[in-house]
Amino acid sequence: MEGERITRRSLLAGAGKLAVIGSGIVAVSGGLNLFSKAEAAKKKVKASELPWPYKKLTDKDIKKVAEIAHDNWFKGFCTYAVLSGIVTVLREKVGEPYTSYPMESVIFAHGGTAGWGGTCGTLIGSGIVASIASGHKTGEAIANEVMEFYSETALPIYMPDHPKAELKAKNTSHSPVCHLSVGKWMKAEGIAEGKGPEGVGFLSAQQMERCGRLSADVAIKTVEFLNAWADGKFTPAHKEPVMTNHIPSQNNCDECHGQDIPKPGPFGTGMSLLSGL
Amino acid sequence: MEGERITRRSLLAGAGKLAVIGSGIVAVSGGLNLFSKAEAAKKKVKASELPWPYKKLTDKDIKKVAEIAHDNWFKGFCTYAVLSGIVTVLREKVGEPYTSYPMESVIFAHGGTAGWGGTCGTLIGSGIVASIASGHKTGEAIANEVMEFYSETALPIYMPDHPKAELKAKNTSHSPVCHLSVGKWMKAEGIAEGKGPEGVGFLSAQQMERCGRLSADVAIKTVEFLNAWADGKFTPAHKEPVMTNHIPSQNNCDECHGQDIPKPGPFGTGMSLLSGL
Repeated sequence: MEGERITRRSLLAGAGKLAVIGSGIVAVSGGLNLFSKAEAAKKKVKASELPWPYKKLTDKDIKKVAEIAHDNWFKGFCTYAVLSGIVTVLREKVGEPYTSYPMESVIFAHGGTAGWGGTCGTLIGSGIVASIASGHKTGEAIANEVMEFYSETALPIYMPDHPKAELKAKNTSHSPVCHLSVGKWMKAEGIAEGKGPEGVGFLSAQQMERCGRLSADVAIKTVEFLNAWADGKFTPAHKEPVMTNHIPSQNNCDECHGQDIPKPGPFGTGMSLLSGL
Repeated sequence: MEGERITRRSLLAGAGKLAVIGSGIVAVSGGLNLFSKAEAAKKKVKASELPWPYKKLTDKDIKKVAEIAHDNWFKGFCTYAVLSGIVTVLREKVGEPYTSYPMESVIFAHGGTAGWGGTCGTLIGSGIVASIASGHKTGEAIANEVMEFYSETALPIYMPDHPKAELKAKNTSHSPVCHLSVGKWMKAEGIAEGKGPEGVGFLSAQQMERCGRLSADVAIKTVEFLNAWADGKFTPAHKEPVMTNHIPSQNNCDECHGQDIPKPGPFGTGMSLLSGL
């Protein structure tokens, strides 16, 4: 490992202003202000390994997360909105490795991934940040809880400082799927297509504002779970649906499929381990 | 910017063996072997900014990507399989910033995100890597093309060196959605639940092997598009569905919804800009 060649001297090069990396070993740059130089030398973090350092966010921090998430929806859509809202504030509070995280790498996941209407992009941004900050096992448990919140709560809730449109409706999606969530809300609001900025000219101002506020809601909820975890108080309340249904799925099959729900178990028999649950 | 304080001397500290970071500025560690020291000093890469350096993968490299993707499905499921297959080989060929990328941060997206059956996790891993290596605009265009490939190709294709089960069926999902893709393949294969490793005891050996091979297929296709892009020969062949349907969605609405397809346009009217396309 190149990292083993890092000396205390090289680590502290730049008078505590530089973090130094070799093959993924990163000094916690925020830590250089928090710890003595000797302590800082011990506080190496491998960016390639999780979790990264996390500091609980205050109410003021969370307000900032929400504002960035809302505003950044209009720069990079939903996944970027949630991820950049949280990561930007963690860059300020913690520093590296968050400072080096390539936030634009998640933009593609908007609109249920490249506009295909699948899993809402906010949930991808939320899951990545939760995993980075708490490790992949806790991160996945947080992702699952955020998906429950997303699916079973009337959204959007957050009122941004600078809304770009007035909204009337809140709506419960009963699904983490983008086109169901968006479509049901549009029906509740009574709007459909409209004029938006160049390139997304068919998106109404209301729909964009709704998705921006919803991004703030998902970012806030993600931080609330991370803060609870940091306090040792995060307890998953729900099983992942795959554990109940024995195939990755939602629990409300008949909503999409009507009466034509594929039979579980060996196909054509309807027999299933589900019957024992 | 801290990065502006980096001198050529500090950049080359460690006799070309150390990459140096300040607020996200990373030297291309692979580049230190490729370029003269003077060139290397100019070849600074900000890990926080895309794209990262990319080198075309050879057929031998791609075989390695596919083997890792297949084998890693059994370590971290689908999203991790695709992402780790490509990133592991790029760590060897390019080095930083790939070496520092936290690959476990994407595990949660398996099974259509935490087992909710939405967008197939392979497509999330693919999209992230494509975005990192080619920038977010090209990355999203590649993600869209990979989703077309995924939806309209009989999969799995790849035969790994060390299969964990024998498979008979290939199946076209006509969807990027996990539970449709998995469910249709299980029906074609004639299997359903079975015994798997601890914690996923209801997954059959065949389904797991199928998802492992499919992860290899998605990883290979992603690299093929990245290689074409590196040659200046990547031309997107498909529009994102959102651009056609004016709401994030697939194009085959009736497959899930039967005759009960929500009307497009202002709800209840059926009027839509779609009619003009």
